[in-house]
Amino acid sequence: MHRSRVYAVLIDAPEAEAAQAAKFWAAALGVKVGSFPPQPQFTTLHQALPGLVTTVQAVDDAPRIHLDIETDDPDAETERLTSLGAEQVSQWEECRILRVPGGHLVCVLPVESEREVFAAQATVWP
Amino acid sequence: MHRSRVYAVLIDAPEAEAAQAAKFWAAALGVKVGSFPPQPQFTTLHQALPGLVTTVQAVDDAPRIHLDIETDDPDAETERLTSLGAEQVSQWEECRILRVPGGHLVCVLPVESEREVFAAQATVWP
Repeated sequence: MHRSRVYAVLIDAPEAEAAQAAKFWAAALGVKVGSFPPQPQFTTLHQALPGLVTTVQAVDDAPRIHLDIETDDPDAETERLTSLGAEQVSQWEECRILRVPGGHLVCVLPVESEREVFAAQATVWP
Repeated sequence: MHRSRVYAVLIDAPEAEAAQAAKFWAAALGVKVGSFPPQPQFTTLHQALPGLVTTVQAVDDAPRIHLDIETDDPDAETERLTSLGAEQVSQWEECRILRVPGGHLVCVLPVESEREVFAAQATVWP
């Protein structure tokens, strides 16, 4: 038995445009920005979407929006998603990057939320 | 003065893979599917994300995730977002498609939510 939930919406922007993208999204949604996760490529949009971390990430890639799924068992969650048709294509630090049916990317990562939030909102998988 | 809010997350999948994508996302997130909006290209993922409509859309395009912004004044909202650096690139029915700084697409559309939800959650722009 393990648990998972959608944790974050990542707005991936090419490095050269990421600062401009973060400025746009903050103004477009009327929110303040912060630095979370604490690495320099992230600009968090505070409370931009209900119940989800929303972050602009500077990437060496094309523009993309992807979802992060947090879980208390990354192995089991990755196996569950691959059994549904996803394929692990790479790994970045603790984040396993899957390409899912339809062609989108999803990251599976260990629990980032506060324990109570995760416990209250995660789905339990048998 | 007008109002707007993020209304929906659209998981755009190429037509040939859209049914498989909808099946994956429903199972991955543990939610039921429905037909909303009522056009055949949409498969709604019920309560997949807190407070947001989440829908797989079959498209004649590459895989993409985009956000829909609903507003009580599409003209004013489009003007607000273009003044922040977005550019209107096309229109599909009542949805104005903007390319925003960073390269992502956003749709601006008239209010779709129930009146009370929109009133409670929308941001008021002067």
